[in-house]
Amino acid sequence: MTITTKVTGTANLDYVFNPESVAIVGISSNGNEINVARLYLEAILSCNFEGRIYPVSTRGGEIQGLKIYTNVRDIPGSLDYVICCIPAPSAPQLIKDCAAKGVKVVHLLTAGFSEDGTEEGRRLEAEIRDIARQGGVRLIGPNCMGVYCPKTGLSFAPDFPRESGSVAFISQSGGNAMYFTRLAAQRGVYFSKAVSYGNACDVDESDVLEYLMADPETDMIAAYIEGVKDGKRFSRILKEVTRMKPVVMIKGGRTEAGGRAAASHTGALAGSVEVWNGLLRQTGVISVPTLEELADALVTFLHLPVPQGRRLGTIGIGGGATVVAADNYVSAGFVLPSLPQEMQRKLRSIVPSDVGLSLNNPVDISGQFEGADVYPVVRAVADYSGIDILVFHLPLSIVPIFSSFPEGIATSILDAVIRVHNETTKPMAVVINNFTDGESWQTALNCQRKCQEAGIPVYFSINSAASAIDRFLRYHENRGRLTG
Amino acid sequence: MTITTKVTGTANLDYVFNPESVAIVGISSNGNEINVARLYLEAILSCNFEGRIYPVSTRGGEIQGLKIYTNVRDIPGSLDYVICCIPAPSAPQLIKDCAAKGVKVVHLLTAGFSEDGTEEGRRLEAEIRDIARQGGVRLIGPNCMGVYCPKTGLSFAPDFPRESGSVAFISQSGGNAMYFTRLAAQRGVYFSKAVSYGNACDVDESDVLEYLMADPETDMIAAYIEGVKDGKRFSRILKEVTRMKPVVMIKGGRTEAGGRAAASHTGALAGSVEVWNGLLRQTGVISVPTLEELADALVTFLHLPVPQGRRLGTIGIGGGATVVAADNYVSAGFVLPSLPQEMQRKLRSIVPSDVGLSLNNPVDISGQFEGADVYPVVRAVADYSGIDILVFHLPLSIVPIFSSFPEGIATSILDAVIRVHNETTKPMAVVINNFTDGESWQTALNCQRKCQEAGIPVYFSINSAASAIDRFLRYHENRGRLTG
Repeated sequence: MTITTKVTGTANLDYVFNPESVAIVGISSNGNEINVARLYLEAILSCNFEGRIYPVSTRGGEIQGLKIYTNVRDIPGSLDYVICCIPAPSAPQLIKDCAAKGVKVVHLLTAGFSEDGTEEGRRLEAEIRDIARQGGVRLIGPNCMGVYCPKTGLSFAPDFPRESGSVAFISQSGGNAMYFTRLAAQRGVYFSKAVSYGNACDVDESDVLEYLMADPETDMIAAYIEGVKDGKRFSRILKEVTRMKPVVMIKGGRTEAGGRAAASHTGALAGSVEVWNGLLRQTGVISVPTLEELADALVTFLHLPVPQGRRLGTIGIGGGATVVAADNYVSAGFVLPSLPQEMQRKLRSIVPSDVGLSLNNPVDISGQFEGADVYPVVRAVADYSGIDILVFHLPLSIVPIFSSFPEGIATSILDAVIRVHNETTKPMAVVINNFTDGESWQTALNCQRKCQEAGIPVYFSINSAASAIDRFLRYHENRGRLTG
Repeated sequence: MTITTKVTGTANLDYVFNPESVAIVGISSNGNEINVARLYLEAILSCNFEGRIYPVSTRGGEIQGLKIYTNVRDIPGSLDYVICCIPAPSAPQLIKDCAAKGVKVVHLLTAGFSEDGTEEGRRLEAEIRDIARQGGVRLIGPNCMGVYCPKTGLSFAPDFPRESGSVAFISQSGGNAMYFTRLAAQRGVYFSKAVSYGNACDVDESDVLEYLMADPETDMIAAYIEGVKDGKRFSRILKEVTRMKPVVMIKGGRTEAGGRAAASHTGALAGSVEVWNGLLRQTGVISVPTLEELADALVTFLHLPVPQGRRLGTIGIGGGATVVAADNYVSAGFVLPSLPQEMQRKLRSIVPSDVGLSLNNPVDISGQFEGADVYPVVRAVADYSGIDILVFHLPLSIVPIFSSFPEGIATSILDAVIRVHNETTKPMAVVINNFTDGESWQTALNCQRKCQEAGIPVYFSINSAASAIDRFLRYHENRGRLTG
């Protein structure tokens, strides 16, 4: 056993994400009681963890055909990774046992440390950190959900997807990590790894960021951060990582009230708003205020080719809807160029009944509910060199005949959009909106999946699309990559 | 037959909303073809129109047991209201026949008039208007969905609710009228009457506004307006009506591109942005950019008692979620006062495991998923005189055990909130968010209904709540009604 002290700048955390064996401490085999340790067992089983799994409880017994060990030291062979779900006062002894066993990483779900604001909490956190450092054990947490790595099968909820993706997510908050992993999956965004790191008494946001910077499986980083352990180091690493990969971040505790809540939540010092704003601006971090906008940003960065500029063309259904869309895009900083007369004539020749329809930009294709009719309109607008990006709107509730478009009609329209997307190089996006019942929401999710598979970003409101695409453009404008 | 010329200032449109008989012109009895006239028949039947109904078509025949007349003049007895679904070139003769028959109102769904931008379209519109005025017939439209009045059974979509409410909605756009009537119903907002008035060649936005100002069944007015016929008159009436009833409005065509689309859509001249902004500000119209925000505004005005000020207390589930909520409320202009030490101690004595929880403001009740546990916390915060409004957050996806809270858990939590709402006078609102699948959306809709029935406004994101409540407060602040 070697004694590892914390070394900055060389954060190879491979062993955090690739354990060959996992012990879950604090498990209850009594199915009638809610037991978070058992949830971890279910989570890694359903995520196809292929290594050895050891449930641990002082009560012993058996669960899901697995022997429950009474102490990690009794586990035969090597042990890489331990998930600690026992109360805080028992944690120091567990870390000692883990050190003796040669465990590399202990993740502590356990709360009741520095975040509780008491002297005892702070003392206990310092104690486990010291034991871990002396014993060569790295700690994740305490007070966090831990690690999700679909490739190796680490997970913290049984319903998390098994699919890996190219986005890494780090979150100081467990609840946000939980919701956002699900939200991202629903939006077709999958993770290379996600880390909910809570109080970060050992492995902290800087360590993880530094690791992700070099991680070949991660192309982009999403982060929810309340406060940092070492401002200087974080600042240096953030500057490096943002040079290599886009980073989208929610800074939790941007306000006095938010910061107060963050202090109770993860013991984080939220830091000065001005310092944070300066850092985020300087490093080109894409800063967002909500998790939904974080998801919109990821969808955009993953799927939208970089438009040459802000000239936006839009095609939708419904006169008033089209007017409102145009107004909101312009308010968000886009330009909606008028289409050339010749092109308007062309559109007029395509659309059989053009009464009451705008065939300029925005284009209104009301009444065209079959892909065969929609295709030539979308194609014509996509082919026009005077627009940099084309956004297609599918409002599900707009006509008298259907309270909400049946899925067949919606997908037939989208087939035409997808066909144009496949045939041209124009950056394209789709907005599916107007949900008035549970059915329309399900239709929207299914339609979204169809577009995702074709690589087209989908948003659920015009303002979501406008904000996300605007952020994407600003990111690239700031990097001087725009030619238009 | 008396000749009615347009008289301003005496717009009694009772006969528009209370016809004793309706003829629908242009009906097809062939069930295999989509026929909008037939949809009107279905719409008024399903809305329980109790007057006489006469389908009309040159082809004659029968539909749903009703004789199809070949001309409105052949209909026996009096005829009040005609819905015109035949092509534009046939409209002048129909209006002549209606005048001869003594019809009071003709609504023209028919498009192809001034909005198509041609000389012929403008000529045709002038022609029908002149015939109507000479014949004492009022026109709604052309190029619009017409009138929805659940009390008398006029309607323009078969799925519209039969319930009446206290909000009137006027919309220059038919599609927006369609979607918004459904969206409002989903949000528990019902209409006294809705008018989609399109090109407004005779009855225009000013006439309807003036009527609604005096309508005892209307407490509040929502509007989607692209352009007005007579700016001076509109401005005068808007000033009057806003003194009596709140008016929430989307101004369509706020931008050059939006205005261009509006011109094609309803032939409206969108007018100068500056003039509009000045008018809306001067009259205290609540201006919103999207239909979703229009719905949020109505929900707020209908259900939220006027808070004494901007001191907001918030209770939620999840540390990170609570931090993000606090930040967003503060960014939207609210103040989140710190709770007194004594009260924090009280909360700490109520919440059994307070580890990692903020029990200040925002309050985090993670782990309290039973109404019995939630009630005392909500009650304590509601009772605190240092806050003016209490917003409760129910994020549906936040814990590992459920990908989304089962409805039973969600409603048990909300029961506690509703109980406090019933027992206290504190203005309260609920945010239900974190939707990651179709099921969670359905749970949200059901939970919303529960709160609606209790008279608590519900929003589906923190930013929706923050924007809507902020608009509501600004409305009352501008009227000097706040004491705090």
